[in-house]
Amino acid sequence: MLGAPFDWGTSFRPGARFGPRAIRDADYLEPDGKRPHLATGIDPLTELPVVDAGDAPVFRGYIERSLDSIERYAGAVAVRGGVPVTLGGDHSITFATATAAAKVYGFGNVALVHFDAHADTGVYSDPSMMGHGAPMRRLIESGAIPGHRFVQIGLRGYWPDPATVQWMREQGMRSYFMSELVERGLRTVIDEAIEAVLAGDGKSRAKVVFLSVDIDVVDPGLAPGTGTPEPGGMTSRQLLDSVREICASLPICGIDVVEVAPHYDQPSNVTAMLANRAVLECLTGIAQHRRAGGAPLPQTEGLE
Amino acid sequence: MLGAPFDWGTSFRPGARFGPRAIRDADYLEPDGKRPHLATGIDPLTELPVVDAGDAPVFRGYIERSLDSIERYAGAVAVRGGVPVTLGGDHSITFATATAAAKVYGFGNVALVHFDAHADTGVYSDPSMMGHGAPMRRLIESGAIPGHRFVQIGLRGYWPDPATVQWMREQGMRSYFMSELVERGLRTVIDEAIEAVLAGDGKSRAKVVFLSVDIDVVDPGLAPGTGTPEPGGMTSRQLLDSVREICASLPICGIDVVEVAPHYDQPSNVTAMLANRAVLECLTGIAQHRRAGGAPLPQTEGLE
Amino acid sequence: MLGAPFDWGTSFRPGARFGPRAIRDADYLEPDGKRPHLATGIDPLTELPVVDAGDAPVFRGYIERSLDSIERYAGAVAVRGGVPVTLGGDHSITFATATAAAKVYGFGNVALVHFDAHADTGVYSDPSMMGHGAPMRRLIESGAIPGHRFVQIGLRGYWPDPATVQWMREQGMRSYFMSELVERGLRTVIDEAIEAVLAGDGKSRAKVVFLSVDIDVVDPGLAPGTGTPEPGGMTSRQLLDSVREICASLPICGIDVVEVAPHYDQPSNVTAMLANRAVLECLTGIAQHRRAGGAPLPQTEGLE
Amino acid sequence: MLGAPFDWGTSFRPGARFGPRAIRDADYLEPDGKRPHLATGIDPLTELPVVDAGDAPVFRGYIERSLDSIERYAGAVAVRGGVPVTLGGDHSITFATATAAAKVYGFGNVALVHFDAHADTGVYSDPSMMGHGAPMRRLIESGAIPGHRFVQIGLRGYWPDPATVQWMREQGMRSYFMSELVERGLRTVIDEAIEAVLAGDGKSRAKVVFLSVDIDVVDPGLAPGTGTPEPGGMTSRQLLDSVREICASLPICGIDVVEVAPHYDQPSNVTAMLANRAVLECLTGIAQHRRAGGAPLPQTEGLE
Amino acid sequence: MLGAPFDWGTSFRPGARFGPRAIRDADYLEPDGKRPHLATGIDPLTELPVVDAGDAPVFRGYIERSLDSIERYAGAVAVRGGVPVTLGGDHSITFATATAAAKVYGFGNVALVHFDAHADTGVYSDPSMMGHGAPMRRLIESGAIPGHRFVQIGLRGYWPDPATVQWMREQGMRSYFMSELVERGLRTVIDEAIEAVLAGDGKSRAKVVFLSVDIDVVDPGLAPGTGTPEPGGMTSRQLLDSVREICASLPICGIDVVEVAPHYDQPSNVTAMLANRAVLECLTGIAQHRRAGGAPLPQTEGLE
Amino acid sequence: MLGAPFDWGTSFRPGARFGPRAIRDADYLEPDGKRPHLATGIDPLTELPVVDAGDAPVFRGYIERSLDSIERYAGAVAVRGGVPVTLGGDHSITFATATAAAKVYGFGNVALVHFDAHADTGVYSDPSMMGHGAPMRRLIESGAIPGHRFVQIGLRGYWPDPATVQWMREQGMRSYFMSELVERGLRTVIDEAIEAVLAGDGKSRAKVVFLSVDIDVVDPGLAPGTGTPEPGGMTSRQLLDSVREICASLPICGIDVVEVAPHYDQPSNVTAMLANRAVLECLTGIAQHRRAGGAPLPQTEGLE
Repeated sequence: MLGAPFDWGTSFRPGARFGPRAIRDADYLEPDGKRPHLATGIDPLTELPVVDAGDAPVFRGYIERSLDSIERYAGAVAVRGGVPVTLGGDHSITFATATAAAKVYGFGNVALVHFDAHADTGVYSDPSMMGHGAPMRRLIESGAIPGHRFVQIGLRGYWPDPATVQWMREQGMRSYFMSELVERGLRTVIDEAIEAVLAGDGKSRAKVVFLSVDIDVVDPGLAPGTGTPEPGGMTSRQLLDSVREICASLPICGIDVVEVAPHYDQPSNVTAMLANRAVLECLTGIAQHRRAGGAPLPQTEGLE
Repeated sequence: MLGAPFDWGTSFRPGARFGPRAIRDADYLEPDGKRPHLATGIDPLTELPVVDAGDAPVFRGYIERSLDSIERYAGAVAVRGGVPVTLGGDHSITFATATAAAKVYGFGNVALVHFDAHADTGVYSDPSMMGHGAPMRRLIESGAIPGHRFVQIGLRGYWPDPATVQWMREQGMRSYFMSELVERGLRTVIDEAIEAVLAGDGKSRAKVVFLSVDIDVVDPGLAPGTGTPEPGGMTSRQLLDSVREICASLPICGIDVVEVAPHYDQPSNVTAMLANRAVLECLTGIAQHRRAGGAPLPQTEGLE
Repeated sequence: MLGAPFDWGTSFRPGARFGPRAIRDADYLEPDGKRPHLATGIDPLTELPVVDAGDAPVFRGYIERSLDSIERYAGAVAVRGGVPVTLGGDHSITFATATAAAKVYGFGNVALVHFDAHADTGVYSDPSMMGHGAPMRRLIESGAIPGHRFVQIGLRGYWPDPATVQWMREQGMRSYFMSELVERGLRTVIDEAIEAVLAGDGKSRAKVVFLSVDIDVVDPGLAPGTGTPEPGGMTSRQLLDSVREICASLPICGIDVVEVAPHYDQPSNVTAMLANRAVLECLTGIAQHRRAGGAPLPQTEGLE
Repeated sequence: MLGAPFDWGTSFRPGARFGPRAIRDADYLEPDGKRPHLATGIDPLTELPVVDAGDAPVFRGYIERSLDSIERYAGAVAVRGGVPVTLGGDHSITFATATAAAKVYGFGNVALVHFDAHADTGVYSDPSMMGHGAPMRRLIESGAIPGHRFVQIGLRGYWPDPATVQWMREQGMRSYFMSELVERGLRTVIDEAIEAVLAGDGKSRAKVVFLSVDIDVVDPGLAPGTGTPEPGGMTSRQLLDSVREICASLPICGIDVVEVAPHYDQPSNVTAMLANRAVLECLTGIAQHRRAGGAPLPQTEGLE
Repeated sequence: MLGAPFDWGTSFRPGARFGPRAIRDADYLEPDGKRPHLATGIDPLTELPVVDAGDAPVFRGYIERSLDSIERYAGAVAVRGGVPVTLGGDHSITFATATAAAKVYGFGNVALVHFDAHADTGVYSDPSMMGHGAPMRRLIESGAIPGHRFVQIGLRGYWPDPATVQWMREQGMRSYFMSELVERGLRTVIDEAIEAVLAGDGKSRAKVVFLSVDIDVVDPGLAPGTGTPEPGGMTSRQLLDSVREICASLPICGIDVVEVAPHYDQPSNVTAMLANRAVLECLTGIAQHRRAGGAPLPQTEGLE
Repeated sequence: MLGAPFDWGTSFRPGARFGPRAIRDADYLEPDGKRPHLATGIDPLTELPVVDAGDAPVFRGYIERSLDSIERYAGAVAVRGGVPVTLGGDHSITFATATAAAKVYGFGNVALVHFDAHADTGVYSDPSMMGHGAPMRRLIESGAIPGHRFVQIGLRGYWPDPATVQWMREQGMRSYFMSELVERGLRTVIDEAIEAVLAGDGKSRAKVVFLSVDIDVVDPGLAPGTGTPEPGGMTSRQLLDSVREICASLPICGIDVVEVAPHYDQPSNVTAMLANRAVLECLTGIAQHRRAGGAPLPQTEGLE
């Protein structure tokens, strides 16, 4: 577990730089190194060797230099066979965290499951899109993660434009809009996503899966502490169940939870609490996966 | 689109006078005149000639004079064949906005779909009910909109009393309580409402439909920025889907979105964001209706 | 109705001492002694003799002495055949309110339906668990309410540990986790709970039922005003429907609604409003029970 | 003591309707009927017969009718020789409270000391000035309180315009701007004001003095809970010392403390606390005045 | 430096248990172990060996047991010749921190300078006064610090009653009310206090001085984040200058800064920042004292 | 008047990007183009041709590119003989706004009066000091404004270190710490500063003066809405009087008001109001200067 207190990529309300700390603090239990998951009886903190590696250094006001630093930091965990869990920060950090995974497991070998209200595939030649609106496009264009290895869940609202949506389809991205979740039901969609993400376009299977959770996938009424809230999202319960299910079913190689902006989360800090539990549910899922005999992560290829 | 920054009709917590501004501002995208609806691919701002006509003049502390002003302002849009979308303001303004529609299309020809936690049919001879508790009763009593042309969705709580509920039934109003939504499902209720609203009591069909959305129809946990919150309401997702569906299916002649009180919406402004998106969903629905060959609005009869 | 403004048992965020006042105030209607329930047409305030008995005296910083005082206060209502409805205060007060019921109706004769995110069965020899983490264990260990008379609904998160969960099962407690609610549906669970609670372990039936509602059973996004929020809970609508159904179906002898901490509920006070309506729904249910011929409460055995 | 929960006269941010309640509650001591003033040793609650007469009825959205009601309510106290202390509400209520005094003691016989950031002498034929911007002008024009009986303290900012300032001078009003307080010192100004207020234009002396305290006279940083805050005001300490001094030195016949808007006062309620203490300091001053042999209030002339 | 996260002694608004953490965090500079005081050029963190000893263990809901623990924790620092700086917590902890000093330097040998809005000399046989209203009385009655060794600065408001004030005088306590500060000026009062505190009643001189700072001595407008705010206090500047002056002039043996309640300090945390700087100013003063050749602390007598 | 919604240079709490809008909105009077200053009778909006030029384009996450844009924007006003009044944004923008002035009036010809809690002379080779901690150093090092042309007022706290303070002295900067303001009085300091700023080191006189106001010069209790609050500052009244006096006495060529971060200013927005009035006081001062025959600004030399 590491923090990426970086929000210089935000287009609207900043503050996610305080996210890592808020998520770490959003806990009312004793710091006893135990967090037994009530429904499954699994305690991820005792089953898995979880370590908090502190925050990656970031450079205020300098996007690229900061992303390089975060990538190196996450990569150092991954190359040792660890599963870096990065606490954002704004969503621009996923270009760093997922690239780190791709450098370790090979460009093209990593799939990405992406919970978000926004596709984050903006055209970054547009200055207003530099930063947290474009990381998914950058990952595709760099080749780190091909479009057909993307599964997005929870998209809604009035962005991006149809031309970009068309581009996304051409890249082979699978995007589940909220309207599809409502029509078909969450469980159906999650089950289908789990099936689809490793298969990609059917030509070759992904080796590992990166999970990126933008907390704004949840409805702003339930998760107000974020920078670009979009009404009409998932419930907290749905997010928690989904991420545990995904981690229990797939070979997860890295996770990030982003866009928690504590200053919009006052006075009750419910969004930071939700992000904290989302991490715990992911860890529980990983522990379930290992108990169930999930193959260990493949040998890393070393950092290029 | 116009604003009605009037809340001198509130019985409890004021502040909806700041609603029009908050709803207009509740947007994190560039002001580029585009808002493509992700799930349908329709951009209502490019398909429909949407104009912001500013705020209607209101007179602080003077209910009747202010309602007259709002009615004239909305009527000026409607008589030109436009669809006035009025941002409240407290719910007392619906007496003005819906009367404007009735004056243009004829008393008795307009139906009204009403999303709200409250029936707003209070006896206004009671001083405490003057203002935002009684607009629906006033519309019926003035003859602008007969009771059998009303469909209400989302009512709950502990008001009004059984005598008033009985009076509502006698007027032919169709009121879907939250308990009925839970029992029968949202889709069933909305479909039935769409069927019923034009038919009324079966003797004559309504020509056009006015849509009035009190943001407090949504659960206060999801939409806290309002004056008289009533627990146990709809979800944000349900409201957005419902209003788009209604606007896509019916000849809408006017809309208002009311009771957004920004000072209870801090620090994240999620209620204003929801109201903003509710307007966008309505506009998307209208664009769908027109694409689908929905008949244009009937000739207006001119303002009396 | 009485208040227990006591929160010296909190382990994390205090403030529930202001709960009784906030819940009483969370009402925007006239204080006219009427609250007709819209969906059922029943007005519990006119059908039932509801009296506000003020707050029980509490002693700042002294848990045991305060619980004694609350127990005596609630017992004084119960022994006269009344149904004490206690507004908390933190959850440690349930040791007092439920013990009062057990002293009136006999140890072992009272069942307890418990809505909560937490099992509240902590080992209270641990100093950090003294107070609001342990009341249910204390009730079992004192013999006031045997384990097989407990039905818990809404548990989730990462507490307590498996050993405690095992102990709970050994005591015969029936605990419905949120995951079970999601799988089987709320109505199924509530119907089953209503069946089960009087039966207990099948050897003898409970005479009466105490209902304890910790407001944190609802998702923190919808009910942020509480001390130890746990993401992923019920909706407000689900809580309101559940408690009315339970009160309409069972011989309720006492109620408490706890853990409303108004300072985390700003600026809109939606949690206090929800707690207020939860009380009204309970009273409506009791009135339904009596209308339906529900047997009056058994003779009390007098206070020991 | 009475409340006037009326804010339908506000031009900007409403909410002062909740002022009376907030001021009454802004107290952390036991409700034991004692409030001994630390520095003087005088307990105004035991020396003076202080009674809380509840709130005057007001009519939502109807200014004139509400002011009539408040005037009658305050007048009923004054005609019995009492000193009505009215908790606002917005400043439009002073037209009612001071007129009540003038009707009891005679038009022209009452002087008015007015702490405020604003002169409140707007031209009320301007719709935007109806309400809380014009009460002082209305008092002068009605003859209730002649201009030369006014002393205003703390004015600042960018309102009203020079023509109105000129009119104020012509009426004989004495207005101490904040700049004068800074130059000459508070004590000098208060002493001079006490000398001047009874003398008026030197032709006849006022019999009694009404004290109107708009909480926005204090700097908004110290008293944020108000509707039209104007930076650069007095300190809390200065207000408390000034009002006690004035009440200890003059024959006070009535007091109001207005424009406390609790929703801008969150989360610490410091403005309501300040208003509460301002009332206590006034009462302490009145008790000092009586101890010092201050003549009792003159015979009232009865209400016309 | 140590924390005492204890607020189970509060009579009104709780939350000071989160004070230690908030004060530690209220800093925007790099954690580089340097804090050079701008006006004096002295860096207390490099001149003095400052160590953060973490928080003393406290027992939720148990006052006496918690005070014992805090006393032991502070005593362990003092007995080694250190100057314990304790971050509260509510003011009841001063009974522990000052008793620790008295046990180390001898009962009767320690003087206490006390900045506060409240005298904290309540009669603790009154249940409502147990806890943070009575620590000064308890110190006197236990003999740890005789009344004539007390200097209090900043008292105001409506508590305690004249009998208690009389008792305080009889004990020889010197209490500077805010009114005296206004009349005579801050500098005069502080200079006089520095002179007086070691002298006591003139019979014997105190060896060392304990400094207790209740943040509510500052005006609530400037320091809103506290439990029992009393309007009309000192400015932030006055407090910072006063405590540095006192620490630069006297042999300080211990310090506490109490009653910072962060939940009333949102969203800007200015009160925690002020408390943080008050500590830094104290440390700067101590460094000045040592530079100026202030005698080292006397030999401790060992803990009894 | 123009806005610079840029805060990508903040080292701690961001949000000043919303400052321009908040300051523009912080006004409760009618938008009638009039703002008559009460104490002087001067209306700067009618005496001076004030124009709002909108916001300068900024590039999210890119400091240098954004500063270039702001400099060009402000320069375009200055080169036409106007006085650009820039609303920040964080303090890094002063490198742009003051450089614009220096380019127009000649490097070395512009003096700078700087109200701030912080010297803003950090060593910017330190990554953490890039941005808003270093603009004054950058101005000196670029030669735009020599050190001896700086007058700083209000510095305090624990930054920068003595080496930097020494460097500042060597550059000839005149820095008035808060401690000096307290000792010598505000008026003395301001009068001396006005004398000194044009003289500089006595060799040549400055032609014009740039005024930079960091709102954090005011005490955080009075101006909480800022990113790096430092306790112990000026009062609001002192700031307003000082800036008007300076503008009335000196040939002002440009102004900026920076570091208003509205999200820490909730719910009352007092800091934005203060910044708004600071601008109005400056404009009033400029109008006074012109009335008093102040020489018009010198011919500009054109933009290089």
